[in-house]
Amino acid sequence: MNQPRTRAAWRSRLNEVIFGADTFAGKAFDLVLIVAIVSSLAVVMLDSVKSINREYGTLLRAAEWTFTLLFTVEYVLRLSCVDRPGRYARSFFGVVDLLAILPTYASLFVPGAQALLVIRTLRILRVFRVLELSSYVTESEQLARALTASKRKIQVFVFTVLILVVIFGSLMYLVEGAEGGFTSIPRGVYWAIVTMTTVGYGDIAPQSSLGQAIAACIMVLGYGIIAVPTGIVSAELTLGDRRRGEGRKSSMGRACPACGADGHAPDAAYCRLCGAEL
Amino acid sequence: MNQPRTRAAWRSRLNEVIFGADTFAGKAFDLVLIVAIVSSLAVVMLDSVKSINREYGTLLRAAEWTFTLLFTVEYVLRLSCVDRPGRYARSFFGVVDLLAILPTYASLFVPGAQALLVIRTLRILRVFRVLELSSYVTESEQLARALTASKRKIQVFVFTVLILVVIFGSLMYLVEGAEGGFTSIPRGVYWAIVTMTTVGYGDIAPQSSLGQAIAACIMVLGYGIIAVPTGIVSAELTLGDRRRGEGRKSSMGRACPACGADGHAPDAAYCRLCGAEL
Amino acid sequence: MNQPRTRAAWRSRLNEVIFGADTFAGKAFDLVLIVAIVSSLAVVMLDSVKSINREYGTLLRAAEWTFTLLFTVEYVLRLSCVDRPGRYARSFFGVVDLLAILPTYASLFVPGAQALLVIRTLRILRVFRVLELSSYVTESEQLARALTASKRKIQVFVFTVLILVVIFGSLMYLVEGAEGGFTSIPRGVYWAIVTMTTVGYGDIAPQSSLGQAIAACIMVLGYGIIAVPTGIVSAELTLGDRRRGEGRKSSMGRACPACGADGHAPDAAYCRLCGAEL
Amino acid sequence: MNQPRTRAAWRSRLNEVIFGADTFAGKAFDLVLIVAIVSSLAVVMLDSVKSINREYGTLLRAAEWTFTLLFTVEYVLRLSCVDRPGRYARSFFGVVDLLAILPTYASLFVPGAQALLVIRTLRILRVFRVLELSSYVTESEQLARALTASKRKIQVFVFTVLILVVIFGSLMYLVEGAEGGFTSIPRGVYWAIVTMTTVGYGDIAPQSSLGQAIAACIMVLGYGIIAVPTGIVSAELTLGDRRRGEGRKSSMGRACPACGADGHAPDAAYCRLCGAEL
Repeated sequence: MNQPRTRAAWRSRLNEVIFGADTFAGKAFDLVLIVAIVSSLAVVMLDSVKSINREYGTLLRAAEWTFTLLFTVEYVLRLSCVDRPGRYARSFFGVVDLLAILPTYASLFVPGAQALLVIRTLRILRVFRVLELSSYVTESEQLARALTASKRKIQVFVFTVLILVVIFGSLMYLVEGAEGGFTSIPRGVYWAIVTMTTVGYGDIAPQSSLGQAIAACIMVLGYGIIAVPTGIVSAELTLGDRRRGEGRKSSMGRACPACGADGHAPDAAYCRLCGAEL
Repeated sequence: MNQPRTRAAWRSRLNEVIFGADTFAGKAFDLVLIVAIVSSLAVVMLDSVKSINREYGTLLRAAEWTFTLLFTVEYVLRLSCVDRPGRYARSFFGVVDLLAILPTYASLFVPGAQALLVIRTLRILRVFRVLELSSYVTESEQLARALTASKRKIQVFVFTVLILVVIFGSLMYLVEGAEGGFTSIPRGVYWAIVTMTTVGYGDIAPQSSLGQAIAACIMVLGYGIIAVPTGIVSAELTLGDRRRGEGRKSSMGRACPACGADGHAPDAAYCRLCGAEL
Repeated sequence: MNQPRTRAAWRSRLNEVIFGADTFAGKAFDLVLIVAIVSSLAVVMLDSVKSINREYGTLLRAAEWTFTLLFTVEYVLRLSCVDRPGRYARSFFGVVDLLAILPTYASLFVPGAQALLVIRTLRILRVFRVLELSSYVTESEQLARALTASKRKIQVFVFTVLILVVIFGSLMYLVEGAEGGFTSIPRGVYWAIVTMTTVGYGDIAPQSSLGQAIAACIMVLGYGIIAVPTGIVSAELTLGDRRRGEGRKSSMGRACPACGADGHAPDAAYCRLCGAEL
Repeated sequence: MNQPRTRAAWRSRLNEVIFGADTFAGKAFDLVLIVAIVSSLAVVMLDSVKSINREYGTLLRAAEWTFTLLFTVEYVLRLSCVDRPGRYARSFFGVVDLLAILPTYASLFVPGAQALLVIRTLRILRVFRVLELSSYVTESEQLARALTASKRKIQVFVFTVLILVVIFGSLMYLVEGAEGGFTSIPRGVYWAIVTMTTVGYGDIAPQSSLGQAIAACIMVLGYGIIAVPTGIVSAELTLGDRRRGEGRKSSMGRACPACGADGHAPDAAYCRLCGAEL
């Protein structure tokens, strides 16, 4: 009877350290983990540089395996200390944790698979856990709410851009043809995206006068059209902030002495719900 | 007497399916249509890629003709089931529907005319019919209203940009001349547009110190000036949203029967100023 | 005695046609003038294109002289029909009108001076006179007011950008040196401007790893920093519009029956200035 | 006894001239200083241009030493006339002042160190002292406050961008490989930054169809995502301005002595709700 209890205590303690961020041990674990993730990412990146690979290849390979083994142990521990391992394994972080170790094992069979290790980047998202969590969550939620609220406006906008890009790309294919580098419609559409987003690589550029005139149109369009999503998000954030501000103001307002109702107008003399004098 | 009636019933039923989006059949038709449009666009695009064309040319050509014949049948059905075929033929979607099939037939006489088939892209706009229509219409209208309300500000802005672009383009033609690629004033104006919209292909770039100094000016101008249309649309959307909010609030407002005070909260039962029952 | 009077009448009539935009003749004159300006600009532009110049050179030169003579006559007429010719000659449009004809005459002595004719572009600003004047003036003024109100914020911003650009440009000169195209500090500063404004020609681009890391920093900075002027103008326009809106609302408000004071709060029961019941 | 007093008076007078900007002498000193800083920066910049260096090298070197000696004298004077020289030496401007003269002396031992003189740019920040100080400080503070208030939202945003850039950069390394110029993951990340910030040099550009499709995604993302920081700053500035406006309004507000109602117009003489004299 003693053994299971110790085991349960151990599991609960492990859970606190690995998943929690309230205790000192929990915070320390998260910090070490983030340092390990960033280091392992650096190793993967450096390993992809030819000159470094030639000189320190063996060392980097060793480091990579060390990190992978560590992360494997961590993954197994996580699975073992949660109440429902299946649910964790299917959760976002569960999948990411698994994908973050698989490529190294896969590289035994498929050379080059290590590059997939960059999926470890997503693990860094845990960093928000270590920072003062709640305030960042509020900020993220505010951004997310603003983006959700303007989702449909943004869909209408993206749709318009897609249609413009297809039409302009095809037009340029017709006008410029293969000489200007517009060898096919998909390539023309690619050029239209490069131009409309004002990236402008210059690998494909119109040569004829008519092509340049059309290009000028799409540039001005792309330059001006960015105002629309920006305006949408600005408006949403401004209004969201105010709504929140109003909410806060009213919650600080006077409560009705008779019915306790809250949120009276600043100049209210009587409770709007029961008519009692405020 | 029976025959015409059946015919009218058939026409009305056809109209419901083809033009409506309320019944199941109407929605299904619209969905199939959109899939067909997107597929036919993909066919046109792939057909323009040389390597794909060489291998699957005949197949793609066949698919293209199939889609065109289908769309032709659809166009004829549309014409036959509306009350005023002439009016439909002259409407925006009527013209687009016709233009979406003509190029294939034209390609029998003029090779290469198929590229014009991309005009089919516009047909995809029907997609909004299938989605929950009303909400998207509201969003589109909001955007359109904001853009209309700021139309004049945007005209003043575009006009200023055009004048700047012509003057800077000519200046660079004078300063850089043919060596820097500024072979004519229109080419200089094209460069000025490419630069001011921050696209920056790099196919034409100033070489002399004076030219680079002027280019730096136009870049900073173009970089900063984008703030103006963005600000216009942001302000318009913020205020539009608020006005709408205020409209809703006031339309729900009841005046106090005792003191006539307005602007009560939606859940108010008593006047906040005199305490009379609302 | 009759002659001077007729002359004065003629001058007044001429003034009305040339400077006014209220009568039919005035509007017609402005329209013809704008068409002439745009045509003469097109002539100057086309003349700068080598291939067109070779073929239609004489024709274009003739057209240019015709326009110049017309504009000269117009300038003389303008001078003769205003009350204070000196003041008009020194005004903005007076100077532009003169500069718009001088280059053609100058080209008799200095070949190539015609390119300066693009200064005629500024004459198009008269176009706003023909359109419904007042509304455009309001919009322009609103924009101008918003920009003036945020002038200092923008100055602080431009100053910060200039300092960043000088420091980053010099840094890249030290890090990259002549191999990467950074042959001097001014060239480095030019590159920093090209990069920070997200134009990105690609004629100068960092080659070393350290250089690319610094470049990445300046790119992210330039990409993010654009939010500042945009935010400034958005805020200014939003607040400007509201202030105007509030002004309008209050002007539609009830006037005090006793003292006629205007602009009472929506819920005011007594005049705030004389205390009379509203 | 007289000597120390004269000395103290001298020090106080010197402090006023060098550090102050209220007296005429103080303003004049600041103006001369700024001219000297800008001139010395111009000298450093011109000296880095090969062709100018060859011709005027000795002259520029002489000017540089003159400026350095002047700034050294100024630095010593500053140290000698403040009450706590140690504190000044460790302050931001103290460090900048020292760093602005060191490189010239360092160039005696390390050739090329002069380029570091551009750190003098930071000294120009003193320019705000000469302009009407207070108003610029207010504007800068407003900007700084808006940026501070949105600090966390911006951190969340920058973090998201960093993760996107690492993932997309690695993806392109896998898809494109060395042929497209993506020779390593860091280079891929560099490309992703160049593309996402819409700079688009074009020195590295995807060649395969799949690579171009992914590039198109990151471009649209980068083009749209700029709306987020812009929206954040816009909202912050709009709300900051309003809060300030409200603060000002309420601080001018008087409560009605009879009914205690608040929020009267600045020119109100009577309570708008009960008519009592204010």
